[in-house]
Amino acid sequence: MSSAPMSSSDDLARLAAVIESRKPANGGDPDKSYVSRLLHKGPDAFLKKIGEEATEAVMAAKDCDHGGDPQFLVNEIADLWFHSMIALAHYGKAPSDVIAELARREGLSGLEEKALRKAVAREASE
Amino acid sequence: MSSAPMSSSDDLARLAAVIESRKPANGGDPDKSYVSRLLHKGPDAFLKKIGEEATEAVMAAKDCDHGGDPQFLVNEIADLWFHSMIALAHYGKAPSDVIAELARREGLSGLEEKALRKAVAREASE
Amino acid sequence: MSSAPMSSSDDLARLAAVIESRKPANGGDPDKSYVSRLLHKGPDAFLKKIGEEATEAVMAAKDCDHGGDPQFLVNEIADLWFHSMIALAHYGKAPSDVIAELARREGLSGLEEKALRKAVAREASE
Amino acid sequence: MSSAPMSSSDDLARLAAVIESRKPANGGDPDKSYVSRLLHKGPDAFLKKIGEEATEAVMAAKDCDHGGDPQFLVNEIADLWFHSMIALAHYGKAPSDVIAELARREGLSGLEEKALRKAVAREASE
Repeated sequence: MSSAPMSSSDDLARLAAVIESRKPANGGDPDKSYVSRLLHKGPDAFLKKIGEEATEAVMAAKDCDHGGDPQFLVNEIADLWFHSMIALAHYGKAPSDVIAELARREGLSGLEEKALRKAVAREASE
Repeated sequence: MSSAPMSSSDDLARLAAVIESRKPANGGDPDKSYVSRLLHKGPDAFLKKIGEEATEAVMAAKDCDHGGDPQFLVNEIADLWFHSMIALAHYGKAPSDVIAELARREGLSGLEEKALRKAVAREASE
Repeated sequence: MSSAPMSSSDDLARLAAVIESRKPANGGDPDKSYVSRLLHKGPDAFLKKIGEEATEAVMAAKDCDHGGDPQFLVNEIADLWFHSMIALAHYGKAPSDVIAELARREGLSGLEEKALRKAVAREASE
Repeated sequence: MSSAPMSSSDDLARLAAVIESRKPANGGDPDKSYVSRLLHKGPDAFLKKIGEEATEAVMAAKDCDHGGDPQFLVNEIADLWFHSMIALAHYGKAPSDVIAELARREGLSGLEEKALRKAVAREASE
């Protein structure tokens, strides 16, 4: 596992708060802030970025199989999560809701049990 | 903003530790764990899921514009982040690296300034 | 360029006609036909496949850079176009409309001129 | 089905020939042609567009469910197929190979039979 220090989720909460403050309704200025601009342009603007950054993350991962630096993958996933957070903010949600959902799944074990049953059945049928 | 309690990033770190333990090299059993199975099958298996979950997140967001429940968006983004974390683990990285990268960008302000310059120039050319 | 014989677009038109006949309204049976099933389940079912197959096409292309067989890329793009055609059919359109749009762009030259201007301006700003 | 006249696949073949001529090795000039530029920049440049255009196609389709014009979907799929063709050209393939693959699947019936078996088993497991 990476040796990076475990940053507290305070960082995510702080970033979410900044995004929140960038909403036009909260005084965010589309001429001064990238986030305000995306929020002002409407959902398609930031949703398109989610598809784009997901593809870039996949390409960066494939490059890691051939000597690529995993930090590029980290950067692309940071972009992907960042734009996910803009979408969450637009629809009244926050990263804490995502983390709560991940925790709610009764630990990975419960989640895995169901996902595994599905995956095995799916492959058996192929 | 959502009223969900700010979960500590301890949840993300704990989830990352579980994923780490699911690596075949760490004793994870592909017959018992969904994560072990994906890691055992190799990158294409979990990278494909990143593209799939990104698309589902975009669709759930579009539904929110017409009465859809934002919780479905939260669920899809949870799936997206979860599979991102499997990819990170495979390449020796962790969510703390992603959060560190987001924090490293000198606060959103510095990030925004550059992104905004690019976005404005891009649109001017359209 | 590939030495494959130039198949006539009659093949695409024929495939579009089969998809058309699979619509539940045209007697397609969701228990007997994969296309009828997707159309019966509704847009999210086949739209999700577009995102999934696009990601698989990107991964197959990346593999081609390291000895992968380009035929796998062809197969993934066939899947991508196939599911695109199901979406087109659902919304009352056909591959002939896509081809007409591509032709309408006054030849690639006109299209390219505008796209190039945009791309150059975009990069100048980065 | 759309009433657009069935364009001959000559249009796809002609477009493929233009793309072929834009390859730097065939004299394409990255300063004058958008396609030459993408081919010159390398795979990531046009593969990223496949993910982006797939997401835009999905969003345009979702809009059709709420009064959106299906022609926007056609336009996005035209973009998606266009960038797919650039990828095909880069790896020595052509749209005729994709169409041959679609035809090779012994008609939609054979394809459907297998896909349906898989889909049914997959759902049974959910």
